[in-house]
Amino acid sequence: MSRNKKLKKARRSSINDPLLLTPGPLTTSATVKEAMLHDYGSRDDYFIELNRRVCQELLTLCDAQQTHLCIPLQGSGSFAVEAMIANQLPREGKLLNLVNGAYGHRITEICQYIDRKVSVIETAEDQPVDVARLNQTLTDDATITHVAVVYCETTSGILNPVEEVAEIVARHNRRLLIDAMSAFGALPLSVGNIPFDAIAASANKCLQSVPGLGFVIAKKDTFPRTRGNAHSLSLDLHAQWQYMNDTGQWRFTPPTHCLLALDQALRELEKEGGVSGRYKRYEENCRTLVTGMRDLGFQTLLPDELQAPIIVTFLMPGEESFNFQEFYDRLNALGYVIYPGKLTNIDSFRVGCIGHFGPDKMQAAVSAIKTVITGSGL
Amino acid sequence: MSRNKKLKKARRSSINDPLLLTPGPLTTSATVKEAMLHDYGSRDDYFIELNRRVCQELLTLCDAQQTHLCIPLQGSGSFAVEAMIANQLPREGKLLNLVNGAYGHRITEICQYIDRKVSVIETAEDQPVDVARLNQTLTDDATITHVAVVYCETTSGILNPVEEVAEIVARHNRRLLIDAMSAFGALPLSVGNIPFDAIAASANKCLQSVPGLGFVIAKKDTFPRTRGNAHSLSLDLHAQWQYMNDTGQWRFTPPTHCLLALDQALRELEKEGGVSGRYKRYEENCRTLVTGMRDLGFQTLLPDELQAPIIVTFLMPGEESFNFQEFYDRLNALGYVIYPGKLTNIDSFRVGCIGHFGPDKMQAAVSAIKTVITGSGL
Repeated sequence: MSRNKKLKKARRSSINDPLLLTPGPLTTSATVKEAMLHDYGSRDDYFIELNRRVCQELLTLCDAQQTHLCIPLQGSGSFAVEAMIANQLPREGKLLNLVNGAYGHRITEICQYIDRKVSVIETAEDQPVDVARLNQTLTDDATITHVAVVYCETTSGILNPVEEVAEIVARHNRRLLIDAMSAFGALPLSVGNIPFDAIAASANKCLQSVPGLGFVIAKKDTFPRTRGNAHSLSLDLHAQWQYMNDTGQWRFTPPTHCLLALDQALRELEKEGGVSGRYKRYEENCRTLVTGMRDLGFQTLLPDELQAPIIVTFLMPGEESFNFQEFYDRLNALGYVIYPGKLTNIDSFRVGCIGHFGPDKMQAAVSAIKTVITGSGL
Repeated sequence: MSRNKKLKKARRSSINDPLLLTPGPLTTSATVKEAMLHDYGSRDDYFIELNRRVCQELLTLCDAQQTHLCIPLQGSGSFAVEAMIANQLPREGKLLNLVNGAYGHRITEICQYIDRKVSVIETAEDQPVDVARLNQTLTDDATITHVAVVYCETTSGILNPVEEVAEIVARHNRRLLIDAMSAFGALPLSVGNIPFDAIAASANKCLQSVPGLGFVIAKKDTFPRTRGNAHSLSLDLHAQWQYMNDTGQWRFTPPTHCLLALDQALRELEKEGGVSGRYKRYEENCRTLVTGMRDLGFQTLLPDELQAPIIVTFLMPGEESFNFQEFYDRLNALGYVIYPGKLTNIDSFRVGCIGHFGPDKMQAAVSAIKTVITGSGL
């Protein structure tokens, strides 16, 4: 087979790939994937300029060009969260962690690994983080230096009140760290409304690029003080930034192809009308999904006002005949990949609203779900 | 433009991409890059099977299927090295680090970050690590538990005598950790000849895949003891392995596209005749390069018997007219990307022999170098 024929074949099969209704890795556009068809040296001028452009664009997305720095990092989103916590929190600091799901718990676990003091305010997985207790705790405990919160807790899909959290943290003159993983690029996040010291996010969520890199956006004026905080050479954001600032290059080999994909993904985000344009499509995806699923008799975990249009948790139907694995497999065979639940105490599954698709495909997914549950007596 | 036309255009321009004569990211085959044209969910059966296959194949490449485990890790090669050191070296352990270049020094730096005792035996950058001093130090210092060595030190391109090192370390009943970054997949590395407790390597060197993930191959019988050693959640290899062993999945989002590329790259390695086939081509690339460059009046840093066929350091010609940046830029314009030197005290540059190309293209690169230096009076 000729090279071109082979590539055409690859393209055709890519079109037939299942739609990923997951919290990422998600379905990206063909053009995002095709951007990876090139090898660049990591000290190539073209690559250095592309990297600079990507970092600038990420800052622009949260209106932080003047006030913050963008530090990209190899690895998954959790690598970026760990790097953010370790970099921002001095060894003598203390974190107050607002938890209502697995990603909040992960921040506590990070503090245990890196030996930093942490206090936790935990609320149920279907409740937003508790701002009243936050306010009280900051009043009571003067040793707390930083507060951490997850913007959209992917465990349930719940939207946390980050604007209120930010207001309280600022009033108490503490520093705010946000895990913005399933939010950045789609949920409103402007440093003007939500003053933060640092956020962590990754390329393969609402930015609709491929997995392989995350980034931290950190306040310029406090950043020099973070030097020496890191517990790890690889995750040392200050060293990463310093080297990039000096040379334009990454400190260690960057995932060049992932950067090429992210650059393309950012152009496509801009074309869609930026964060608000993307939010609108995800909201339509979410409404289509929730309406359709409720029509089929499924219940959402969350009331609509707490639901972020990112990923929706559905309660597992009580019927004995409902077998999630069978449901998952049959849906997969029809070309739709959903996600298992992550709740601690309730049987559930999740359907993502993010990725390169619109309400028409979501409607088709709902129809496929209908086919599966009616056709099989599931 | 139609989607197919656009893709054809992308392919055409990929063919015209410069040849990367670097230590990685390097020039990969078109088929390796095209393997990334698909999005897979990380808990997809196909992806789980692919991941399992990749790990098995990596073990096979060093004859370690029976004795070792393969733990893949997100990030660059240095992430894997840091994870290996932290995972293998208990907090009360002590590392003896054999250093003759920047990557050896990096292991010392890792020990400082993670607060582990380290002794260093340093030799000059153009000398192999000192096996006599290794033997003596292991005799003298009973507190040393582990020894670290870089197989091919990319700083100079020197081949270290890992077989001798392994024999001495085994005789003293200590544990050997190898940074096999610029070696794995091309230089002989069988656990039969070179008994090791762990090696770290990455996808984007001699395996000829894209950057974004590394891996550690660690001895099965001692691995359970490494639990709790890690200093970092993200770099905790024991937790990474445990989760993968239990579920078949990665603990945090894997770089799915990089895994697809690596799977394809491993098939292409097999087609080439495995490690020995690849070694043969790299050796031809290296011989073509060194012969051609010597004909042009360039000197290699290393004598041939110390030169690994991976990357060659050339001394910068003494003529005042030789301007490396101009040399680099003009060569780049002709379609060849070389690498700056990394030696501490000597002006030099480096040319890589690894990647998806053979002696014909290396010959063309030498001709281009000739054009640049003769045409411009450089």
